[in-house]
Order: sequence, then structure tokens, then C-alpha cells
Amino acid sequence: MNFSSDNVSGVHDAILDALRAANDGTAVAYGHDEWTARAVARLRDVFECDLSAYLVVTGTAANALALAACCPPHGAVVCHHEAHITTDECGAPEMFTGGAKLMGVRGPAGKLTPAAVSAMLDTMGRGEHEQRPSVLSLSQATELGTAYAPAEVAALADLARARRMHVHMDGARFANALVRLACTPAELTWRSGVDVLSFGATKNGALCVEAVVFFDTALAEDFLYRRKRAGHLVSKSRYLGAQMLAYLDHDLWLTNARHANTMADRLAAGLGRLPGVRLPLPVDANEVFVIVPRALHDGLRAAGARYLEWPGEGPGTDVVAGDEAFIRLLTSFRTNDGEVRAFIDAASSIASHAGR
Amino acid sequence: MNFSSDNVSGVHDAILDALRAANDGTAVAYGHDEWTARAVARLRDVFECDLSAYLVVTGTAANALALAACCPPHGAVVCHHEAHITTDECGAPEMFTGGAKLMGVRGPAGKLTPAAVSAMLDTMGRGEHEQRPSVLSLSQATELGTAYAPAEVAALADLARARRMHVHMDGARFANALVRLACTPAELTWRSGVDVLSFGATKNGALCVEAVVFFDTALAEDFLYRRKRAGHLVSKSRYLGAQMLAYLDHDLWLTNARHANTMADRLAAGLGRLPGVRLPLPVDANEVFVIVPRALHDGLRAAGARYLEWPGEGPGTDVVAGDEAFIRLLTSFRTNDGEVRAFIDAASSIASHAGR
Amino acid sequence: MNFSSDNVSGVHDAILDALRAANDGTAVAYGHDEWTARAVARLRDVFECDLSAYLVVTGTAANALALAACCPPHGAVVCHHEAHITTDECGAPEMFTGGAKLMGVRGPAGKLTPAAVSAMLDTMGRGEHEQRPSVLSLSQATELGTAYAPAEVAALADLARARRMHVHMDGARFANALVRLACTPAELTWRSGVDVLSFGATKNGALCVEAVVFFDTALAEDFLYRRKRAGHLVSKSRYLGAQMLAYLDHDLWLTNARHANTMADRLAAGLGRLPGVRLPLPVDANEVFVIVPRALHDGLRAAGARYLEWPGEGPGTDVVAGDEAFIRLLTSFRTNDGEVRAFIDAASSIASHAGR
Amino acid sequence: MNFSSDNVSGVHDAILDALRAANDGTAVAYGHDEWTARAVARLRDVFECDLSAYLVVTGTAANALALAACCPPHGAVVCHHEAHITTDECGAPEMFTGGAKLMGVRGPAGKLTPAAVSAMLDTMGRGEHEQRPSVLSLSQATELGTAYAPAEVAALADLARARRMHVHMDGARFANALVRLACTPAELTWRSGVDVLSFGATKNGALCVEAVVFFDTALAEDFLYRRKRAGHLVSKSRYLGAQMLAYLDHDLWLTNARHANTMADRLAAGLGRLPGVRLPLPVDANEVFVIVPRALHDGLRAAGARYLEWPGEGPGTDVVAGDEAFIRLLTSFRTNDGEVRAFIDAASSIASHAGR
Repeated sequence: MNFSSDNVSGVHDAILDALRAANDGTAVAYGHDEWTARAVARLRDVFECDLSAYLVVTGTAANALALAACCPPHGAVVCHHEAHITTDECGAPEMFTGGAKLMGVRGPAGKLTPAAVSAMLDTMGRGEHEQRPSVLSLSQATELGTAYAPAEVAALADLARARRMHVHMDGARFANALVRLACTPAELTWRSGVDVLSFGATKNGALCVEAVVFFDTALAEDFLYRRKRAGHLVSKSRYLGAQMLAYLDHDLWLTNARHANTMADRLAAGLGRLPGVRLPLPVDANEVFVIVPRALHDGLRAAGARYLEWPGEGPGTDVVAGDEAFIRLLTSFRTNDGEVRAFIDAASSIASHAGR
Repeated sequence: MNFSSDNVSGVHDAILDALRAANDGTAVAYGHDEWTARAVARLRDVFECDLSAYLVVTGTAANALALAACCPPHGAVVCHHEAHITTDECGAPEMFTGGAKLMGVRGPAGKLTPAAVSAMLDTMGRGEHEQRPSVLSLSQATELGTAYAPAEVAALADLARARRMHVHMDGARFANALVRLACTPAELTWRSGVDVLSFGATKNGALCVEAVVFFDTALAEDFLYRRKRAGHLVSKSRYLGAQMLAYLDHDLWLTNARHANTMADRLAAGLGRLPGVRLPLPVDANEVFVIVPRALHDGLRAAGARYLEWPGEGPGTDVVAGDEAFIRLLTSFRTNDGEVRAFIDAASSIASHAGR
Repeated sequence: MNFSSDNVSGVHDAILDALRAANDGTAVAYGHDEWTARAVARLRDVFECDLSAYLVVTGTAANALALAACCPPHGAVVCHHEAHITTDECGAPEMFTGGAKLMGVRGPAGKLTPAAVSAMLDTMGRGEHEQRPSVLSLSQATELGTAYAPAEVAALADLARARRMHVHMDGARFANALVRLACTPAELTWRSGVDVLSFGATKNGALCVEAVVFFDTALAEDFLYRRKRAGHLVSKSRYLGAQMLAYLDHDLWLTNARHANTMADRLAAGLGRLPGVRLPLPVDANEVFVIVPRALHDGLRAAGARYLEWPGEGPGTDVVAGDEAFIRLLTSFRTNDGEVRAFIDAASSIASHAGR
Repeated sequence: MNFSSDNVSGVHDAILDALRAANDGTAVAYGHDEWTARAVARLRDVFECDLSAYLVVTGTAANALALAACCPPHGAVVCHHEAHITTDECGAPEMFTGGAKLMGVRGPAGKLTPAAVSAMLDTMGRGEHEQRPSVLSLSQATELGTAYAPAEVAALADLARARRMHVHMDGARFANALVRLACTPAELTWRSGVDVLSFGATKNGALCVEAVVFFDTALAEDFLYRRKRAGHLVSKSRYLGAQMLAYLDHDLWLTNARHANTMADRLAAGLGRLPGVRLPLPVDANEVFVIVPRALHDGLRAAGARYLEWPGEGPGTDVVAGDEAFIRLLTSFRTNDGEVRAFIDAASSIASHAGR
């Protein structure tokens, strides 16, 4: 019953197989191998456009490099108050941009709204006494497991563009949002105004690969230099290319994401039926946020269940009482029905005992 | 006949096997997995001391993070003029330290000498008008395939310590130097005064793993923060731990290094017998530097042989004439006798035709 | 009627005289002159302790250099949400620290409280995934013209020390707070736990000089290097030393501050008597914050009065209605009674006309 | 007999007078005052072109800000091996650019030649593994007191442009070079291909003001932000504007420079007549470099003469023997005939005694 993170799951077999298959003979190093070239070509197919894409090994690197490509050191990145880039990356965006400021905007359900972003931007603009808002960064899915529909992305991107800001999307769980929204990758990104996407694969079955995908290819001009000086140019790059290819081949990425989302749905459905349990947010990806009685929470912990008590500010759509806990359950491509049922059964049992 | 880099070789089977073996079940992410813990314990055994060690995916990251741990932004790193950190890392040390200066000292055979380092340091020290020399960085093996004996390391380290500088060793090819020098890992590092080592594994058979090994553990105080903010904390870290374990288990690292060195010896022996060919440097690792007639160089290239014409300043122990080329041949754990013989045969044939 | 900033006033005659007096003959450059040495000695007298002090030309430089001395690049600086360092310095603290994060804590009257700081800190501490709180920075006087009493400083400093954080005080208007609080400079700083002070002089009559004063002298270890590499080591440093000496001699700094505060008191008293005008904050320095009917604000602007409509979040102690404006009036050592009376008369006249 | 630096001289009276004259009334702060506006207008007249110019207080700030405007963090600045930016600014260019590398090119007489620069650049260009040469920086006058004629500047600038690099001129002693070369400011800068100039005034009579002058005004786009975040936006900016105006008015800058140069000529003429004394370099500015018998050097020091024994690599046009010293004498706008004669007399006396 480990729902603490999608990172605790291992690697999909097809991806391990791809590493083995790529292991014959010599290959040009440092990103010039054929696997990487094919992976980039596949990303062009997937997103139905010309694009520049680069592989790195972590989501933090993908985000920080993407932001550095569109934000000067005296710029500011506007993002949600709980965005991963501002709460969980130990200042990587600040390091890679050379000191830009992350401006957190509050909003319910982990989402930015045009009104809230505009309000923040309207307080700025006094010239060089403060950093210049240069990028709007969206998380898709958000840190609260919700997703922006293409129209929502477009509304925010339009606003950014009107303020001469670039648009970044942190897609650590892009696949999970995508399969839920029933739209195309293109619709969810460049057709809605996204300039650069951190396209995650690691959380969804890869070993260690993410792509920084530039739809505005002019922004990628210096990317090779930026990646190298950050120590993120992997020498035996064929194994990154091979991972990404296997991830995209046969729609493995979509299959994995659909599976994880389905497991999340079942968790949500099962938990939602328990007394005193509330689901304050839609389950738009593979994350289930639940408000539970603290007694239930304690019981689950005692029973060995692993998940996160969310350290942030609550869902914004409901209030967590003093005797309640706001918890996050994550599913992955590997989560199985048995684990989900075991968790629900355990919760159900604890709840019914508590109710006596 | 690809001797262009040890990076063009793939991954050793034992290491791929270890990835597969590590793939069952869930594992704590972000460096807290048991594989990583065991790898660190193994490094303590190998180096016969208490130490702090951290895994990263590239040598550039290992070097830049190690340097950042011992050099302030207003410091200077003294290194060989052709050290990888100053010629091949696109300013990663500058980025990670926040702007430190790399001071290149010239010296024959790719090596620093106490006299040359002292001469450089004697020109400095005018207070805050220039950066403060804070670290001495040695490459082991050097960029010219030579190795520092423990006594040479100790002499340089003593000098550094007398100037209140820390000592870093770039061990991208540490194993290759070690097996040649017939000493222990401890003798070549902390017993000779090294504070922090970039312990390479990727060039010698791993997929993507290097360890930053602190013998002066006080220097590691902030390392976790530095690694994370550089985007180098890998989420599914068990696969780095598993690589490093397999690399150290059954002395795979030493076996691989010995093999590569033997292949280099054979290349050197075969080429050294050809007319007009000179070996200006000892072959202390898996790199063979050769001065060849330009006609031979052209012939080898035409025959499809792949290797590097060295862009640096020559061996320093011999002079490369206008009609000669200074070339580098790299061998790896995978180089086989057939490749070596094919290259020597090709060179021999070209040379004998040219001689007519 | 220019109450827009204390920076719009010129330089006190005694300070200009001091520049002239320092102009004879040669003097060692780059901070080694005798004027600077005497200024530092005088600061030791003023603060009744051994200390390290360094002169720079701007308050932003003083703050950013002070913070860089006590915050690593992966650290965080906790400060008030409207602190000058986070809203008005265009990321200088981020640049000088190499990327540290400024964490804004909300609080009424521009002041931090131990409870609010503790609450912020309690959400942090998850290890290297976020920056480590390293410094608590207080503005004295605050951006809302209020002052921390020594006991308030001590309570916050105690809290910081318990969390292993350093304490910085932004004293751009230190003199103004000091004369109001009727305590000694020592009591307001190191005796209350302050480690490093940005000691302002420019706003209070100097041309361009501020001192970075380290009470914890160990923090100053690298300061000379940090100042130089920021381009803040002035060559003809005697003119900075001479300014600071003149500022401290004959208590000019206290006299100037008392005058400015008195002018602020009169402004406050006069405005407070007008209908519909509220003073939501104590006037602890030379800043008067007033809530005025928007009609009065418009009238004053039309009459040529210059002051700031405060862009921040309001006083926190009162609510600004839609038909009101929250304005800031600054006085200086040069503000005279006539200007104050003219402004009050103008306001009074506009108010009485509006009232008809 | 203090010829150690032009920084040891004080401030020209006309400039102190200008500070006093600017001291009446209020003035808009932070660079928006009328003195600054007029100074920029005057610079446009002086350089006969439209330009963007910004005032700062130190030469290091001027250089580092100028370089940051034209060099990305992954770029390299090519300069003379002994250029002030690489030997005397404690890494300010590295800090302001975010980590760019300074590439020192050797050359006699402190000057770069197209051949030497080309040779350096030809070793680079292997893509992202090394920093990208982005700026060529010339010192005018050079650190060895020589000057580039307009044709020399143009030849280097043409080379830079062909390599897509920008051209920066460190003009800490621009006036001294200019009056010697008998050309116009325009000819020595933008007409010869210079993009941005650090236009020094402090060494030549000002208290603390330098201008960063952009002839390629597109490079100045973000300058206001860069200056502010470096803490170099002075609040009471009218006093920088007033200094620069006084410096340019009535050709004070040219008069001062001519005077200093004349004093240097006299020093050179007097010393050149002494036995065993050699002038290995032309005196193109206010710096006299002399090779003297070490006995003479010791005698002068004993007699209280102050000047620098040059720590660099010698003139490059002559060899300094073991019993000789290579010394630098600096003159300024305030150096007078008496001081020059006293120094020559002292040297003459020591030399004649030594000769017995």
C-alpha cells in the first residue's frame, strides 16, 4: 500500500528492454546518436509540428533549463503558489536563470486563473526596481491533481502573451492530464499557446528521461550550451533516446497514464463512499486528494499505508477541519487492483471500527 | 575501428543486469533507497575510510558539484591548462561555484608540477582585487593519458594545503590510473591528501553514474542541497545505486580498467614500431597519444578509422612537426583484440605504401 | 510639496564640506585610506562594540552584500512580504547570494511577528527539496514607517537563532527608528541579537554612503572579496569615509533623523484632524501613512503635491475603502515647516471644499 | 613622490564645485534627474552619434555591466592576458554575466593582435563543450600604457564581427589615449567598430563616476534592470550627472588627460637618460613603464618614492634581467612638475652614486 509517489514504482519492462536493445556496438556520444534523433522525430509526430527537443534525466533539470531559456536573470516567473518549481526544486530555477524570482499566485484547486494572474501583474511594472515578469508557468497536471482544459491554457497563455511573457508548461504528469482531457498533445500545448514544455516520462514508467520541448524554436537557440554547463549532457545519450522511443512507441505513455488514472479513479470511488471522507477536487490525473477524519488517517498509517499528508495550503475548494487530514494518494503505471482494494478495505475497516 | 572515446562503447552486461534486478517492487525515491546506501557502504570499503559519497549521472556534474563544495564564488581553481574542467565543461564549474575562476597552469605530459603551481600562486595574493586560490584540481588519469603517482599527488596536495587550498581529483578515468599504478585507492586519494574525488564509472562500463566522494566530510555539509538545486537528484535513484554496486562488485571496475589499459598497450606497441611514429607520452591509462606522419593520419581517416586529432597544445615532451599529426586513441572495456589488430594492420599497410 | 521620498532631498552641507576638506593631497585608494579607518572606528564607538564595517554607495548593495555573507545559494531569507529586499531591489539579493529565495511573511503594520515567522518555518524543513531558511531579515524602520522595539527585535532574533538562522537588519532608516525608540544603537542591534546591519546614511543626508556593519565578525570573513567582485569597492574611498565621518560627527545623523521625524509628526497631526482622514499606523520614523478620501487625494495631486500612493497591500491594521487612497508621505532632514504647513493647508482647503 | 596610481589623487575642484551647485532643492531620484539627462546628451555630442549611456560609480561595475549586456552566461570574453577585467576585478565579469569565461590572449606591449586573437579562436568552436566566444574586450589605454590606433581597433573589431562577437572597450583611461592619438572620440570607438565603451572619469579627476556607453543601443535593452540588481542604481543620481557634466564641460576631461600625459612624458624623458634605464614601451597615456637596475629601484623605494613593481609578465618587447625591476609610474591631472623633477632628481642621484 505504497501510494506515496509515482517515483517509487520501478521502470516499465519495455523500457528496460529498450536499454538492452540499444547496447550493441558503438554509438556517437553526447546527444548525436541515432536513438536520440529518432526520439526527437517521434516527438514531432506526437505533437504534429516542427519543434526542438532535448533529453535530460530529471524533471527539475527540464523545468530549470526551460525557464532559463525564456527568463533573464532579472526576470520573474509567475506560477501557482504551490507549483513544484517554487516549492520543491531547491532553487534550481533561480540557479539556472541566474537569479530570477518566482512569483507565487494563489488559487483554488492548484490552478491559476486569468483574474488572479492579472491581479498579480497589475501590482508590478514599476520598472527596474523589481524583476520583470517574463514567463508564466503552468503545471499540467497541477500539484493538486487537477488539469487545465485547452481553453483554460489558452486563456492564460493569451494573457501572458499580451504582457509579453513566455508560456512554460511543467508536464511532469502531462500524459495523465492528456488522457483525461481527451484532446491531442498539440491542442494541449502549442495550439493553446504553450512555448516550451517539460515533457515528463520518468514518473510514468521511464528510468530517467524527460524532454524539454520547444514549440517556439527560437527560444532553444542556446539550449545546447545551457544543458552542457548544467552537467546535463549525458555522454552515453543513446540510452536516453532509447528510453524516450520506447516510451512513445505503441503508445506506451498513454497506456501507462490511462492505467494510473483508472487506479486513481477506483481509489477515489472507494474512499468517497466512506463516512466522513470528502473528495474536494476532481481526479484529473493519477493523484487523489482526500480529506479524511484524522482517526482514519492515523489508522491507515498504523496499518502501514504510505502516502503523503499534503504540506501545502489545502485544496482551496473546501476547508480541512482540525480533526481532519488532507492527504494525497498517488498511483502509477504499476499500481494494481489488489493494492487499491487492499487500501480501500483497510480504510473501510478502520472507518467502521471508528464508527462504533 | 572506433577509438574516438570510451563514451562510444555501450554498457557492461553486468550493469544492465543489475538494472533489471533492481526493478522489482517499490523503493524510496530521491537517494534514500537501499541500493544507494549499499553503494556508499561499498565505497567506504574500497577506500578504507569513512567518507561521504553521492551519486550523479555525469562527470561534469560530479566535477562541478565537487568544486562548488570547496570553492567560494570569489575563489579560483588552479588546474592544468588542458584540464577537462576548464576546456570541456562549458563553464559548469563557473556556474556551480557561482563564478569562480579556473586558472590554467601549463606543464608537460598533461601534469601539474609543484614548481609550476607555486609560480602561478606567487603571482597572486594581492588581496580582493583578484580571486582567491581555493582549490587545486588534478585529473587522474590526466587528459593526456598520464597518471600521477601517489608521491606526486602528495607533493601537490602538500603545496595546496600550505596555501590553504582544498584538493580535488577529477577521476573520470580513476580506475585506469589506479590499476596501472599498483597502489590502493586510499593511497591514491586521501592518504595522499585528496579532499574530494569525482569517481568515474560511466566511461568504464556504467550507463550513467559517477560518485562524488568526500574524504574531508565537512566539505559535504551542503552537498544534498547543491545536488538538488542543480537538477541532479535523480528520483528513481535505486538505478544509480544498482549501477555503482555492480560496478564495484567482483572488482568489475578494475577488470574493465585493466582490459582497456591492455588494449591501449597493444595499440601503443603496434604503432610504436611503425616508421615515423612516436609515442611522446607514457601510456598510463586507456589513452594512447601518438605523433604520426600526416600522410598516415590522412590514410587512416580515409580507411574509416575514428579517433581524435588532439586540439590542445601538444604533448609538451616532444614537438609536433608541420607534416605530423598529434592524435589520441581511446580504448574501453569493450575494445577487443581484433579491433586493435585491424587498426595496427591498417596503419602498417598505409605506412608501408607511403614508404615506397 | 514634495514628500515622495527622502532621496529627493539633497546632501547636508556638512557632508559636502567634508568632501572638500578631504580633497587635499594623495590618499591610498580602495578602502585603505585614513578617513575610512576613522569612520569604522567611530562606528565602533557608536555601537559600543568591536565590529567589522565596510562602506558602499547604495542601500541595495549594502543589503545584498550583507545577505550574501550569511546565506548560501541554496538558502532562503525570511522577511516581511513587503520588505524592500523582496519588492524593490530587482533581485539583487538573489544575484549576490547566487540564487537564494526570499520568503515573504505577511503581517500587519509592515512588521514580522514570531508567530507568523514560526508558522512559515514550520511548513519548511523537508530537506533538500526546498531552500534552507538561513537568514531572518528585519527592516528598521519598516516599509510602513513603523519600528521594532528592542524587545521585538530580540524575540524575533531568538526565534531565528533557535532555527540556526542569522539575523539581518535593513537599516535604511535606522536613525529615524532609533531616535524614536529612545534606546541606544547597541540595544537596537547586537544586544537584541542582530548579526549584521545595513546602516543607512544616504536617505538621512549623505550623498552616497552606507555601511555594512557586522556584529558577528566571523560573517565578514569574505566580505572584501564579495564587495570587490560586485563592483562596489570605490577607488577614491576617502570620500566615502569622509561622508560617514561627517554623518556621525556632532551627532548629525541623530539631529537629521529627529528633524525628519518631527516634520512627520506635524504632517500626521495636521492631516489627522481632517474629516475622513485616518492614520492607520503609528508614525515611528519619517514616514506618514494616511488613508484619505480619494477626492482629497485627487485634489492634492491636482495641486501639485508629490507623494506615493502605496502600491502594497494596505496597512494591515485598517481597511482602505474603494473611495479611499492609501498614501505615503516622506519627510527628510531638509523638509521645513513651511512645506508641511503648505501641504496641510492645501489638504484642509480641498477637504473643506469637498465637504460643502 | 606618489606615482602609485591615478586613484590616489583627489577630485578636480570643478567637479567638487559641481556637486555643490547641484545641491539645491529636490530632484527626482534613481537616474531620472535632469543632470543625468544632460550628461547623456553631452555624451551624444562628444561621440557625435545617438547612443545610450548610463552612469555608475566604479570602473569594475562599468566593465562588468557592459560585458553582461553582450555576453551570455555560457559565453566567453576574449581579452589580453593582463587585462584589468581578468586580473583585477575579482571575478566581477564572471559574477555579472552569470559565469562567462575570460580567455586571456598573450601579446607584447599589452596589446591584442588580430593574429593572436584568431589563433585563440581557431582552437575553439567545438560546440557546446566549451563556452562560446561572444565578446572581444580591448583596454584603451592598455594596462601597459599603450594605445590602439583607430586602425588597430578597427582590425580587431572586424575580426570580432566576422566571428559574431561584440566589441567592448575598457576606457578607464580613454581620455589619455584619445588625446595622444589625435583623433575624435567617434573615430576611436563606434567608427572603428566598438559596440560598448566603459568611459572612465574617476581616474581623470572625478570623485566616482563612469559611463557605460552603448553605441549598439540594442545591447542596452535590459541595462536598467542589470544596473539595479547589481546595486548600482544610485538614489541621489543628480550628483553622478553633475560630475559627468563638469567632467565634459569646457573640455575638462581632455585638459586633465593632456596634463597627465605631459607629466608622463617628462618622467619618461628624465628617466630614459639615466644609465641602465630602459623604456621598453611607448608612453601613449599617463603610464610610464621602465626597466631599471634593481639597485636604483631599491634606492627609490628607500627614498620614499611610491609606485608599482609590475606584477605581470613584463613588457613583451624587452626582457627584464634578474638584477632589474620592471616598474610602473602613474601620473594624474594633479601631478605637478615639482613632483616629476623631484623623482627624476632622486633617481639621478641614486644612479650616480651607484655608478661610482
